Amino acid sequence: MEPIQSLVGAEFPLFAFSHCRDVVAAVSRSGGFGVLGGSSFTPESLEEELRWIDSHVDGKPYGVDILIPEHQMLGMDHSIDALLAQIPARHIDFTVDLLRRYGIAATPQEVVTRQLPSTLPEMGEALMDVAFRHPIRLMVNALGIAPPAMIERSRRHGVPVGALVGAKEHAVRQVKAGVDLIIAQGGEAGGHCGEVSTLVLVPEVIRAIKPIRDVPVLAAGGIMTGAQMAGCMAMGAAGVWTGSVWLATTESEASESFREKMVAANSRDTVRSPTRTGKPSRQLRSAWHEAWDGPGSPGALPMPMMAMISIPTFGKIDKAADAGNEKARELVSYWVGQGVGLVEGVCSATAVVQEFKQDFADAMSRMMTIIDG
Amino acid sequence: MEPIQSLVGAEFPLFAFSHCRDVVAAVSRSGGFGVLGGSSFTPESLEEELRWIDSHVDGKPYGVDILIPEHQMLGMDHSIDALLAQIPARHIDFTVDLLRRYGIAATPQEVVTRQLPSTLPEMGEALMDVAFRHPIRLMVNALGIAPPAMIERSRRHGVPVGALVGAKEHAVRQVKAGVDLIIAQGGEAGGHCGEVSTLVLVPEVIRAIKPIRDVPVLAAGGIMTGAQMAGCMAMGAAGVWTGSVWLATTESEASESFREKMVAANSRDTVRSPTRTGKPSRQLRSAWHEAWDGPGSPGALPMPMMAMISIPTFGKIDKAADAGNEKARELVSYWVGQGVGLVEGVCSATAVVQEFKQDFADAMSRMMTIIDG
Repeated sequence: MEPIQSLVGAEFPLFAFSHCRDVVAAVSRSGGFGVLGGSSFTPESLEEELRWIDSHVDGKPYGVDILIPEHQMLGMDHSIDALLAQIPARHIDFTVDLLRRYGIAATPQEVVTRQLPSTLPEMGEALMDVAFRHPIRLMVNALGIAPPAMIERSRRHGVPVGALVGAKEHAVRQVKAGVDLIIAQGGEAGGHCGEVSTLVLVPEVIRAIKPIRDVPVLAAGGIMTGAQMAGCMAMGAAGVWTGSVWLATTESEASESFREKMVAANSRDTVRSPTRTGKPSRQLRSAWHEAWDGPGSPGALPMPMMAMISIPTFGKIDKAADAGNEKARELVSYWVGQGVGLVEGVCSATAVVQEFKQDFADAMSRMMTIIDG
Repeated sequence: MEPIQSLVGAEFPLFAFSHCRDVVAAVSRSGGFGVLGGSSFTPESLEEELRWIDSHVDGKPYGVDILIPEHQMLGMDHSIDALLAQIPARHIDFTVDLLRRYGIAATPQEVVTRQLPSTLPEMGEALMDVAFRHPIRLMVNALGIAPPAMIERSRRHGVPVGALVGAKEHAVRQVKAGVDLIIAQGGEAGGHCGEVSTLVLVPEVIRAIKPIRDVPVLAAGGIMTGAQMAGCMAMGAAGVWTGSVWLATTESEASESFREKMVAANSRDTVRSPTRTGKPSRQLRSAWHEAWDGPGSPGALPMPMMAMISIPTFGKIDKAADAGNEKARELVSYWVGQGVGLVEGVCSATAVVQEFKQDFADAMSRMMTIIDG
């Protein structure tokens, strides 16, 4: 058995990160490994999602990913009022005006959430409490070094810990901190990412951690097909971690308008920008970025304030676009990697897994032909 | 026989782009395919280099790469005096002052070449004249669409034409224009490059050109090892095109100081900047970029004027650094891709080919293990 199978129990080392419980359950049922992105939930709603997954996953393994930034705003007052006080009026006015210019009416109150951001340390702790009450087979930290509390608690629950890294130095620190699985995510990935490409980062990380401890490495960033998966495994990856490809599924949480834009997009239609979370994250380029990067923009706020604006605002944008507002559609955006250029249509998550398996097998046959000369 | 072998005669589909004739000959002799970057030469010196290669390549196949930008400065006066007149005094003064601050004395005359840039169309034509007088097996255009003249003349000489592309749309246009070999070069590559990563670009290009014509695709950008080569071929590439890895060889044209910096660098130490040629090209980040991107900088000049400054200036920088000037060393830079993070030392070009072959075979064995379960 491959090390990755004994570690998390997946038959086919295709890891699917998704905020959508249907995708997570469908992938795990099909032999892959679904990982629920927990950071878009409150502890209560995460409990509900995991309970649903438990009853739909047919006993197959799955995991949870929680975003706990390493460099927290230490000593910061984390009450919602203290956070709201750090959002300048001109950022709110700019947002309201931007929406208005694209045919969406909104009050200043509507473009700022009053919900505590899930990236606060106390929220991460509460989400972990929930996750460990379920039979998860992997706990992943999405941003920075997995905090000691996460590693200790995972050990206690017998759950392996994974961590996403965008640079070999981070991988070395993670392995030294005790992480069991490294996800080497290249700069072409959707969401928070670094600048080094997957093709370079994966061998660089594998080489850097080898002398320390034998930790499996998943390749991430730009991976949308079984052929790419085979390619990454030929380079020594134990499997692949994917995200964007699951947005183009019928089950996906992404809006209808966004999925249509995904199918139409090519690989050059993404942008790495801080204007959604406060840290650079790769997204589909839209009128949103043009406005925030253009003249008259007040500039992105730091984390977590930027998301306190972008979450409710994109909620309004998606709603307006899906209702047929063509101007609003120009603003529609979501996290997605350069692999969006390989998306040709929308199908079920189960069908995506089947296609990965077929494509992987085809790539293997191709390699056999090369070996046989 | 693989299509790529019948096309250019290489036994092992490892293409080595280099400005150094020793590297070209050594790679071809070892079963790979050396490609001489012709654009750093005058017609006279190119003639000399190719004659040398002919007598050192043991009859093995090799190629030539010429840089002919698609969007030439049409109708522009290409005399050296007309070009010099387009270099503002403040760019020259800035360069002289920058060198002075790093301990290098130079006159304004010394930081601007009076040699016609090789990227001018008439220079490209003259270089082609020379190349076709030698038994080359491949003619490559490095920038933009291969001009009709290159394709027609190659056809007449029975030489296949290759072209580098950084976007699938360019690949489609190249194939329609009649190119025989596409080199899909990701944004992690050294030199002129786009923004899409190799891992995404290669499958995107393969998919896009398939309905038009069955043209082999080489993967390029970030490739430094045989395992990466196997990975790219698992994705459907017919072979790989490499550049940076040959700079870290004993034969390389790169300065001693640059090679030392390469060994010390990691994958995040490169920058995609217009400050060397006038178009964005990836280079090792140094004090040069800090200065040109910093306050008080006059900004990069367009092509070909920027290179008319950078060529003689980096000549002085390398000379000073190699002579032991530690300040000058901070400025040392050259084109290199993110794969620089995988360079661990300097060895002969022949040894690099052998290592690629071994590493490729190891990756193949790894794949066999996966197939056998």
